[in-house]
Amino acid sequence: MATKPITVKGTRDFTPLQMRRRNYIFDTIKEVYRLHGYLPIETPAMETLSTLMGKYGEEGDKLLFKILNSGNFMEKAAPQAGPDAPCRVEAEDSALLSRNLLPKISEKGLRYDLTVPFARFVVQHQGEITFPFKRYQLQPVWRADRPQKGRYREFYQCDADVVGSDSLLYEAELVQMIQEVFQRLGIRVQVKINNRKILYGIAHAVGCPEKMTDITVAIDKLDKIGLEAVKAELAERGLPSEAVEKLVPVLLLQGDTEAKLKVLQDYLKDSEVGLKGIEEMRTLFTYIADMGLSVPCELDLTLARGLNYYTGAIFEVKAEDVQMGSICGGGRYDDLTGIFGLKGVSGVGISFGADRIYDVMNDLNLYPEALNSGTQVLFVNFGEKEAVWCFALASKLREAGISVEIYPSAAKLGKQFSYADSLHIPFVAVLGEKEHEQGVVVLKDMKSGEQTPLTLEEIIKKIQA
Amino acid sequence: MATKPITVKGTRDFTPLQMRRRNYIFDTIKEVYRLHGYLPIETPAMETLSTLMGKYGEEGDKLLFKILNSGNFMEKAAPQAGPDAPCRVEAEDSALLSRNLLPKISEKGLRYDLTVPFARFVVQHQGEITFPFKRYQLQPVWRADRPQKGRYREFYQCDADVVGSDSLLYEAELVQMIQEVFQRLGIRVQVKINNRKILYGIAHAVGCPEKMTDITVAIDKLDKIGLEAVKAELAERGLPSEAVEKLVPVLLLQGDTEAKLKVLQDYLKDSEVGLKGIEEMRTLFTYIADMGLSVPCELDLTLARGLNYYTGAIFEVKAEDVQMGSICGGGRYDDLTGIFGLKGVSGVGISFGADRIYDVMNDLNLYPEALNSGTQVLFVNFGEKEAVWCFALASKLREAGISVEIYPSAAKLGKQFSYADSLHIPFVAVLGEKEHEQGVVVLKDMKSGEQTPLTLEEIIKKIQA
Repeated sequence: MATKPITVKGTRDFTPLQMRRRNYIFDTIKEVYRLHGYLPIETPAMETLSTLMGKYGEEGDKLLFKILNSGNFMEKAAPQAGPDAPCRVEAEDSALLSRNLLPKISEKGLRYDLTVPFARFVVQHQGEITFPFKRYQLQPVWRADRPQKGRYREFYQCDADVVGSDSLLYEAELVQMIQEVFQRLGIRVQVKINNRKILYGIAHAVGCPEKMTDITVAIDKLDKIGLEAVKAELAERGLPSEAVEKLVPVLLLQGDTEAKLKVLQDYLKDSEVGLKGIEEMRTLFTYIADMGLSVPCELDLTLARGLNYYTGAIFEVKAEDVQMGSICGGGRYDDLTGIFGLKGVSGVGISFGADRIYDVMNDLNLYPEALNSGTQVLFVNFGEKEAVWCFALASKLREAGISVEIYPSAAKLGKQFSYADSLHIPFVAVLGEKEHEQGVVVLKDMKSGEQTPLTLEEIIKKIQA
Repeated sequence: MATKPITVKGTRDFTPLQMRRRNYIFDTIKEVYRLHGYLPIETPAMETLSTLMGKYGEEGDKLLFKILNSGNFMEKAAPQAGPDAPCRVEAEDSALLSRNLLPKISEKGLRYDLTVPFARFVVQHQGEITFPFKRYQLQPVWRADRPQKGRYREFYQCDADVVGSDSLLYEAELVQMIQEVFQRLGIRVQVKINNRKILYGIAHAVGCPEKMTDITVAIDKLDKIGLEAVKAELAERGLPSEAVEKLVPVLLLQGDTEAKLKVLQDYLKDSEVGLKGIEEMRTLFTYIADMGLSVPCELDLTLARGLNYYTGAIFEVKAEDVQMGSICGGGRYDDLTGIFGLKGVSGVGISFGADRIYDVMNDLNLYPEALNSGTQVLFVNFGEKEAVWCFALASKLREAGISVEIYPSAAKLGKQFSYADSLHIPFVAVLGEKEHEQGVVVLKDMKSGEQTPLTLEEIIKKIQA
């Protein structure tokens, strides 16, 4: 007896309703990307481990799903093997054995994000690419993370990046796309913007330029753990107490973006990089104004974002009406393709968190009503003769873009209607002998219960309304 | 120095042009599925090996990509392991070692097709599903096959299935969808139809009912290797020579579907199953006529299809104007979910071969011209002041669904135009001081070279034409 099969831990099936809602989000993002001249690409699910390893830190390497070499995968691990020779693999402990065996039995892994595969794509296809290259990519990624609420081992990323230009117009365009995506979805958001150069300048100003990473990692937690805990963490990370104190006013800086930049202009006067960061922010906020963007944008110095490859502007988007982490983020990086030997290609990009957006839309009940049903019309089946009449009409409705099915057998009417009911099919069409004679179809609106005899043209008009 | 990274063998990157063409095919298939009331689902890339193994034959098991367990994967393989105990894995030869180790170090694999995951989905979600359940699913699958021309290790399948009904209306609907997909794509096709019950009846009639699988596998090759080789293969598979001879006239049966069915009616008169198959075919061809389908459909007794789970109608589609294998296929299966303990759920489905369809469209040059370009309009950048004017107009064009970008810097005009050229952007918009004063934009048609001053409304009309 077969046991009931289940999905792999941390992964999900998507039912038709979930698919329609997810596709609504994906399609909105893709359409906005397309309207701004971003071009679609896709990369394979599998990359070589040499492409993936070492790009996400030690922790990331552990979270990569690794694919076992095909066939006799132990062949390379046991070189003395043969029909006569004993084959042996031994080690002091199993963890060491795992570490030693891994490179011999696995050469491929599942992609962990879309950024490294994109960098690989740019380097591999550099001869065919016109720069600046604006690409978007919506594909699943896989991480062997411990599954928990809202964290999955398979999830979609929805990225747009431009590489090969350092124009700040692109930063502004990304903010514009953020505004458009969330406007279309009906989610009110705030965009928080910061600049890694300013963060570097601050580290310089407090006298610890070499501690920039520690400072940004700690600052990133301000929202979550509060000022005192951040101060403690900074001390723990080896920041002298006078540096910590010097940093506090910056963390607590109030006022609008212009006011903050004014204070920083003075605070960072000795840091060339810091001043460059301020200039970039002024330019970006000018572009945002020039474009007439209405989405609330704010310079937020506590925004750091974890990824070390960012070198300029960084973004994060939060929903106004729901408690939820960041639902979109991104930033500028100056040397992403450098890891694969192609230097000097600056880029900037964003990524929408589809799973969180899905949850926000659910919480706020923002999905259009139309997504609740798939099929729009069910034709009742009275038997073979009547079915033939239905075939012809169904084809006409489909030509008008309406999704139609015919019940597969002349079952009892109750059964046919309850099928329509449980699939949330909004209209049931009845076409029997009498209706056929009169050249009409009785269309039942399943919500109101109303039944109306209609001609084909009237049905199309009613359903498309 | 980093080495230039590459894609994994047998997998592919898709460039923007390839993406647009592939999406054109996928969108066509999805739209036709949707119009017929099929509902989208998706399943995870990874399934447990217990779900996957043993479903595709011994060869299939070998072709599954297996995922190494996370972390210390050798822990279960070396139970005596510990800080003090030596850890050892040994075997006579590496192949045996691989076989023994596999179940201890890998529990998950990448999906090999969409059919087994769908069966798993139906069993796992049977409580939430309304039957008959019409689903479609377009997702990649992975096979560790030897890569060769037209055969990849990662490729998309595009499946539609109905489970929970044995109505032959669904077989007819699948043929209708085949017709519509290929009509929309502009590919002339032939649909070949057969029935496993007839094949079983034939095996019965030649006196070797137990040889049905051997007979169908051999028959399947008739097109490729010819009659004599098939006869030889049948003999090799243990079919007595009188049975082989008795089979030949059936293989060579000529005439239209009705003529063939008439001869078979007599040939299979002693096989209840065979006669049921004939009846099913008559019903199906009646439905096809009732639906007014114009696609050429033919009963082809040499069609067997490899998959053993088919039990009724089987389909295969070939392009008329290109030499290419089957570009779509499918059939009825009576017990797919039985492998997971849910008995008595009949189903029928088809799968479009997207990669082959892609090649056919290429060979016949069938892609719409519009797919050649992504962005439709590039605004020339003359500087910051002019860019602000462009922002406003670009937004208006985007509201009309037109994809627009603004060159990111005030580079030399030649450079900006050559960017448009190499991206095949069909229109370049020039909006300088003079145009701004006159309230127009000069739109250059990059193909004809024609330059026309136009208002916003005129631009929208021209581009949408």
